[in-house]
Amino acid sequence: MAHTFINQIEPGQAVDDIFLVKEPILRSTTRGDLYIAMYLCDRTGQLNGRMWQATEAIYNALPKPGFAHILGRSEIYQNNLQIIVNNISIVDTSKVSLDDFLPRTTKDTDKLFKEVKDVLGRIKNSQLKAIVDEFLADDELMKKFRTAPAAIKIHHNYLGGLLEHTHNTLNVAVAILPFYPQVQDDLVLAALFLHDIGKTEELVYDIAFSYTNTGQLLGHIAQALLMIKQKADGLEDKGKKIDQNTMDSLNHIILSHHGQYEFGSPKLPATPEAFLVNYIDDLDAKLNQVKSAIDGESPDSDWTSWQKTLETKLYRKRIEQ
Amino acid sequence: MAHTFINQIEPGQAVDDIFLVKEPILRSTTRGDLYIAMYLCDRTGQLNGRMWQATEAIYNALPKPGFAHILGRSEIYQNNLQIIVNNISIVDTSKVSLDDFLPRTTKDTDKLFKEVKDVLGRIKNSQLKAIVDEFLADDELMKKFRTAPAAIKIHHNYLGGLLEHTHNTLNVAVAILPFYPQVQDDLVLAALFLHDIGKTEELVYDIAFSYTNTGQLLGHIAQALLMIKQKADGLEDKGKKIDQNTMDSLNHIILSHHGQYEFGSPKLPATPEAFLVNYIDDLDAKLNQVKSAIDGESPDSDWTSWQKTLETKLYRKRIEQ
Amino acid sequence: MAHTFINQIEPGQAVDDIFLVKEPILRSTTRGDLYIAMYLCDRTGQLNGRMWQATEAIYNALPKPGFAHILGRSEIYQNNLQIIVNNISIVDTSKVSLDDFLPRTTKDTDKLFKEVKDVLGRIKNSQLKAIVDEFLADDELMKKFRTAPAAIKIHHNYLGGLLEHTHNTLNVAVAILPFYPQVQDDLVLAALFLHDIGKTEELVYDIAFSYTNTGQLLGHIAQALLMIKQKADGLEDKGKKIDQNTMDSLNHIILSHHGQYEFGSPKLPATPEAFLVNYIDDLDAKLNQVKSAIDGESPDSDWTSWQKTLETKLYRKRIEQ
Amino acid sequence: MAHTFINQIEPGQAVDDIFLVKEPILRSTTRGDLYIAMYLCDRTGQLNGRMWQATEAIYNALPKPGFAHILGRSEIYQNNLQIIVNNISIVDTSKVSLDDFLPRTTKDTDKLFKEVKDVLGRIKNSQLKAIVDEFLADDELMKKFRTAPAAIKIHHNYLGGLLEHTHNTLNVAVAILPFYPQVQDDLVLAALFLHDIGKTEELVYDIAFSYTNTGQLLGHIAQALLMIKQKADGLEDKGKKIDQNTMDSLNHIILSHHGQYEFGSPKLPATPEAFLVNYIDDLDAKLNQVKSAIDGESPDSDWTSWQKTLETKLYRKRIEQ
Amino acid sequence: MAHTFINQIEPGQAVDDIFLVKEPILRSTTRGDLYIAMYLCDRTGQLNGRMWQATEAIYNALPKPGFAHILGRSEIYQNNLQIIVNNISIVDTSKVSLDDFLPRTTKDTDKLFKEVKDVLGRIKNSQLKAIVDEFLADDELMKKFRTAPAAIKIHHNYLGGLLEHTHNTLNVAVAILPFYPQVQDDLVLAALFLHDIGKTEELVYDIAFSYTNTGQLLGHIAQALLMIKQKADGLEDKGKKIDQNTMDSLNHIILSHHGQYEFGSPKLPATPEAFLVNYIDDLDAKLNQVKSAIDGESPDSDWTSWQKTLETKLYRKRIEQ
Amino acid sequence: MAHTFINQIEPGQAVDDIFLVKEPILRSTTRGDLYIAMYLCDRTGQLNGRMWQATEAIYNALPKPGFAHILGRSEIYQNNLQIIVNNISIVDTSKVSLDDFLPRTTKDTDKLFKEVKDVLGRIKNSQLKAIVDEFLADDELMKKFRTAPAAIKIHHNYLGGLLEHTHNTLNVAVAILPFYPQVQDDLVLAALFLHDIGKTEELVYDIAFSYTNTGQLLGHIAQALLMIKQKADGLEDKGKKIDQNTMDSLNHIILSHHGQYEFGSPKLPATPEAFLVNYIDDLDAKLNQVKSAIDGESPDSDWTSWQKTLETKLYRKRIEQ
Repeated sequence: MAHTFINQIEPGQAVDDIFLVKEPILRSTTRGDLYIAMYLCDRTGQLNGRMWQATEAIYNALPKPGFAHILGRSEIYQNNLQIIVNNISIVDTSKVSLDDFLPRTTKDTDKLFKEVKDVLGRIKNSQLKAIVDEFLADDELMKKFRTAPAAIKIHHNYLGGLLEHTHNTLNVAVAILPFYPQVQDDLVLAALFLHDIGKTEELVYDIAFSYTNTGQLLGHIAQALLMIKQKADGLEDKGKKIDQNTMDSLNHIILSHHGQYEFGSPKLPATPEAFLVNYIDDLDAKLNQVKSAIDGESPDSDWTSWQKTLETKLYRKRIEQ
Repeated sequence: MAHTFINQIEPGQAVDDIFLVKEPILRSTTRGDLYIAMYLCDRTGQLNGRMWQATEAIYNALPKPGFAHILGRSEIYQNNLQIIVNNISIVDTSKVSLDDFLPRTTKDTDKLFKEVKDVLGRIKNSQLKAIVDEFLADDELMKKFRTAPAAIKIHHNYLGGLLEHTHNTLNVAVAILPFYPQVQDDLVLAALFLHDIGKTEELVYDIAFSYTNTGQLLGHIAQALLMIKQKADGLEDKGKKIDQNTMDSLNHIILSHHGQYEFGSPKLPATPEAFLVNYIDDLDAKLNQVKSAIDGESPDSDWTSWQKTLETKLYRKRIEQ
Repeated sequence: MAHTFINQIEPGQAVDDIFLVKEPILRSTTRGDLYIAMYLCDRTGQLNGRMWQATEAIYNALPKPGFAHILGRSEIYQNNLQIIVNNISIVDTSKVSLDDFLPRTTKDTDKLFKEVKDVLGRIKNSQLKAIVDEFLADDELMKKFRTAPAAIKIHHNYLGGLLEHTHNTLNVAVAILPFYPQVQDDLVLAALFLHDIGKTEELVYDIAFSYTNTGQLLGHIAQALLMIKQKADGLEDKGKKIDQNTMDSLNHIILSHHGQYEFGSPKLPATPEAFLVNYIDDLDAKLNQVKSAIDGESPDSDWTSWQKTLETKLYRKRIEQ
Repeated sequence: MAHTFINQIEPGQAVDDIFLVKEPILRSTTRGDLYIAMYLCDRTGQLNGRMWQATEAIYNALPKPGFAHILGRSEIYQNNLQIIVNNISIVDTSKVSLDDFLPRTTKDTDKLFKEVKDVLGRIKNSQLKAIVDEFLADDELMKKFRTAPAAIKIHHNYLGGLLEHTHNTLNVAVAILPFYPQVQDDLVLAALFLHDIGKTEELVYDIAFSYTNTGQLLGHIAQALLMIKQKADGLEDKGKKIDQNTMDSLNHIILSHHGQYEFGSPKLPATPEAFLVNYIDDLDAKLNQVKSAIDGESPDSDWTSWQKTLETKLYRKRIEQ
Repeated sequence: MAHTFINQIEPGQAVDDIFLVKEPILRSTTRGDLYIAMYLCDRTGQLNGRMWQATEAIYNALPKPGFAHILGRSEIYQNNLQIIVNNISIVDTSKVSLDDFLPRTTKDTDKLFKEVKDVLGRIKNSQLKAIVDEFLADDELMKKFRTAPAAIKIHHNYLGGLLEHTHNTLNVAVAILPFYPQVQDDLVLAALFLHDIGKTEELVYDIAFSYTNTGQLLGHIAQALLMIKQKADGLEDKGKKIDQNTMDSLNHIILSHHGQYEFGSPKLPATPEAFLVNYIDDLDAKLNQVKSAIDGESPDSDWTSWQKTLETKLYRKRIEQ
Repeated sequence: MAHTFINQIEPGQAVDDIFLVKEPILRSTTRGDLYIAMYLCDRTGQLNGRMWQATEAIYNALPKPGFAHILGRSEIYQNNLQIIVNNISIVDTSKVSLDDFLPRTTKDTDKLFKEVKDVLGRIKNSQLKAIVDEFLADDELMKKFRTAPAAIKIHHNYLGGLLEHTHNTLNVAVAILPFYPQVQDDLVLAALFLHDIGKTEELVYDIAFSYTNTGQLLGHIAQALLMIKQKADGLEDKGKKIDQNTMDSLNHIILSHHGQYEFGSPKLPATPEAFLVNYIDDLDAKLNQVKSAIDGESPDSDWTSWQKTLETKLYRKRIEQ
């Protein structure tokens, strides 16, 4: 059954669909009856939900947050649409089509992933190739890599965003590298592939985008370092030891790719490759952020709202052709 | 007559050549005789020069700094080579082959300039095209554009450096633009061509690299703004008025291309084009700086000396193939 | 007909007057009827307006924002006064007495402007005098100069504020200059007159105070530079070329008058005159801001609310005489 | 006997004069004989001094630093003038004319002090008047006030500098106050008189300019607070208690007069008077610093050397009249 | 009569108790009748209060804020509990049990104070001992010292907090000092006792926690300096003069104990003792702040909300034993 | 044979000893003969060495830097002592008593290490205990742990410094922990033991103190993370898997122990344990730095020289007892 999206519900309509239930609260009316207030959400928005004649048992059973099948009816209350919930039953996340609830890239992720692998096929250095192949061969991880967002906020904050961002940075690198012949191509390509790989562990995105405990305590930079060590240890067990200089050079790019201490890089770029990765990553993230901000607001004004992290409004008026 | 370079002079050799004379001082010996101490320089280094039996008239006639034809002989004094000057005669700068005295790009500037014009030929927007053509048609300015360094220190600090840097940023832009379709290509190309054009007025580089008074008081960003207005006024006089939005969009990129207030940009980037120009400019400057630092020091150590503006040493060891 | 101010309207009163209409929204009631919610404003405040039985055509015709003649009646709704709009007709801005809608200096601007001209009459340097006179002779610009606010927020943010601020800084300069004999008086006076002249182009203030596109993209500092060049070009056309050093010295003060990079100055003060203009400008702006904050809040407390840009509350209790 | 200044000594001249002896070191020659190396200084410069056939006793008796009467002869050694010391005898500081050894204002300090008192005579508020008079009546302190420099480096760093700086800020205040009628004149005048009074205790300037232990540990701001309390306590003992609000308002200006935390102000300005004192103090200090830098270097160049605290070179070229 | 706490009031209950009245406003209903809206508060929370049929005289008599005896009844209005006030009578603060209205340490303050005195008994240096004893002998001050909070927000922000914080820092010092034998114990103990003593004057906490005018204008650091001088002057009057070095060393620790200029310290730590006091103070404040944040929020989540001053959320999940 | 220290060599003395040879340069005299200039060093200082009649072969064989046995004689040249080298033979580092060449803690490292193990014996948590024991059982690593300095400069910059610093921080923790019962002791102790363990890999200290390539590219924080993972992997192989929360909690403290981004911590402290470790580490490092600065300079002055990282001079005068 196709999902009826929040932003399509009209007043007085019967509701029989799965929604994400957030922040349920058990309250009592002035007469002392219990009721549950909650938000019902999908990727198009959220509405207030009210379940009258609720019990503490129903409340305790509710996910906080989580998915539930809602039977009820929409109505207008104080000029706002809300949903009166007659019946609520928990739905396991595995039964839910995530696409209805989480924003997702509009690009074809199979195609993007194939192109990422094509670009990585250019790597000639046998050690970096071995590390990259070890990651590509990790099916479970690659599945996450193709699904994860690149961030919770700011840029590429949608399912597939990590892949889209990685794909784009690799393309930019391939285009730019010929102009900087002193830069070691293989290091740049391997590092761009892995620079945000830690986000597969840093973020959860089953219901909404948030940080894992590990992600919040360590961050995706430290996480990536540990993951690369894991793969290198695996290679060593198979008799293919990665030499120290190659490990150091790759790890340094990961550690320094945010470019500044205050952005969480414990090391500043100290190799041509580290500088290039830092710039390509930042450029792609910023242009995605700028595009989202401009596309995400009404085109009535020449200016977007104030963008806090950019310390400016953005100008969207184009020049005459 | 080919110039004998400073770093090729041996002890006990006759000297009969043009050098850059810097910081001449008139001193008296303990016996009360006057002599002149000075530095004799070219692009390979500098030596102490001593002219005994000097007069105040000779001293007053000396350029401070400037070129002079030196007759004399080299000798060792306290383990250092110096030049005893027997005769000194002023030489007009126009008679001097600047290449012997100022570092110069190793690239073919005619080829670079042709390629710059080719890239600018891609601009379709008639107004931006008109502005760019107005600059290209200014022969005197283009001569400076092909000769000027891009900076006194830090990056592309050699004759032809401005052209080389502009050329490279345009190439990078052409390579990257396909990946950011929302960005207006013509604005980016025109802005990259002009982003440092003010350096033709900001810097002097006839004898050594330094700032003009105007350059030091206004900076090349404000300078570029005034130069663009000059060309636009010229176009208006010819009946081709540039509309306000095009002027504003171009000027905004110039004003914001340093990306941060503390780097002298009075405005922060507020358009996709401004972000892209800021990143491409910075990336090209930094990679040139990193390359110069690595190439400019002895390869005996894996690390360069401390790079103050980068807050790190640079690692030059390459990975095994 | 005298305007009845928002803060004088009583409940149950007939309304027949011009107001500034802001943020009109077309909504439907729970019965499906369309109505328009809007704000009705003048310089004394704003009230909710509701027009029942509205049509899409009426809504589309409304300015967003703009002036309209309102026929209707005031009423209390949920303890708040609102206006029920029976008829709404657009009014051209030219028909409106701006004084009713925008805050305005309490000073006599004719007198202020005359005194500004008197002070500028002290300038003896023929070149600076020529530039200043060129500005004074530009009637259209001087009209704006006498009307513009000095800022949207923070200080002198009312009609005539630019003139009042310029007038005060010139007076302070004349009083202080005798104590700093090394400072070139003419440069200081000319620079203070022109330091914020770009605000005439940076700001719009016909309905409310806001930035023009040019203003937001370039800022008033770059704008002033272009305006001074315009006048100098005009003088050159008339055979009176301003020499480079005078132009540079004046332009440098304009560029550096905010005193710090992070306040949008692309150059730091490098002449005694630039330091003096920076201090006088800042002092006058700050004391106006402090005065407004203290006068603008209830005197019940010894302290004003927290002033974000000053990072402190302000103490308003005076000492005993 | 008039002092022969360091910068007037010629080679081969007999020396019989008092100098400041700095950094004496006892060394042995290659033959094992002891000698003393030292600097001999006055306010015009310093020379190397050498005392051959020295003993440990002579060395131990030397001040480090301090004044001594030197008998000897000047000679050239390796192209530098030095003084061979035949006899050295300690001189008590009280016997020395400090003017020969420390830079001093060129202004008439009696006149300056009289004018300071005249300006302070404008104070009408009886409590502030009482405090100010208590300071003026403290002869010992006023003697220091008339002699102390305003700083060790940067600005007004010469004997009488504190008085000159205070005098100038009071004059500027009197000139500016009419333009800011909301500001309480008496508070500004009293605060300007006392804002740097702590420097009389913070600095020593008997031989050279340096910090006292108390000065370095507490700073002149905290020092001033304690001195004002001392005077207020004295007034209270005489039956003239200063009320809390007056004390707080005055102390607040002292505490905040550096304007920023990083300049050692533990409080930011929070009254109109505190802002005004901060600006006037800073303006006068900066203009004195700029003047000193410009006057202190050779006028051959249009630019001074780099001024670290101002983050710029200074431009000294004046406009044509 | 025991106070009925705000968070225990049920709908429809008679109210007859003392509350803190905050922000009373006199309003008129749509019928023109006057009523008073106010908040009724104690340390457990606040409710809206409404007094119908009010008069201007009643309103004028109300404290703003202050304590009042309220007769009335609770009711639900728009789902929120509020209190209808039938009668209101002012209550003098001295009649009120502050414990019902202000948060208070859960520790036994008599015991804490005794232990503080015990630790201070370790001081052997006669001068520091004299100063400390002078403070301990000031009964009025010690009463405040035992009652004051250590801050309005952030850490130890409850009655007795100053004592609790001081007590804990002294204990930590006694435990750590043996590991740093170069540190002068007596200085550290005396300075820790007095480092926040100025908060007794900086803060008021009779009704709610706020700053005194003196506190806000001077800050507790400057305040402490003046209080120590007061005690030292008292000792000098009794013939026990404290020597300058001891005063300076103690005062320096007070002035620098915030460790950084931007935290209001006009001097940076320059003695081992100053560093130790800075670290112990900061450590104890931060751990108290962290504990409060973790304890103060629901343990449902592994993370607290964002802590602005710490720039992070806090992780509360403990490791398995 | 006991080493004769550099600072004990007298002029004209025969030299027959091992020295550290630094920066050897092959030069030719004015007559064209080759000679080698070098520095000869031990932990007490360095002297110039000159080997006349040198050959390119001798020069090439020299370590740069490294140890060599020197036969020769001391002499005075231009008032400085230097050593004329007659014979030079390379010495393997393993034959050298490092104590003569590198500064070393004065403490008994066996005793310190035993006490560290005693403190770690307090850890009850089985998982943390397992990790700690895994490190303690790694003999090679523990040997480095007992020898390494804690830093190249700033604090504990001598052999054994890492152990001494770790020992002291553990002692401080044991003393403080009772006052903060909410803090998990075991986590603090384990984290303090391991917080700088990465320095065993970050630094080399066989001849002089410097960074390894890995150390400079990754830093000791990232290094520690990888080392802990190595040990945890080893435990997992033995069937003792460390749970994720324990790993995260420990790793978080390591990552955040510098307390600020700009000090190279990619995460800010977010647990009570992380705050405590950050403070104890910083306190111990700073007090060691302060002690070294005070002890390392002549006690003639009350103040040390300017300490750049502390932004102050240090005051060494103690109070009277």
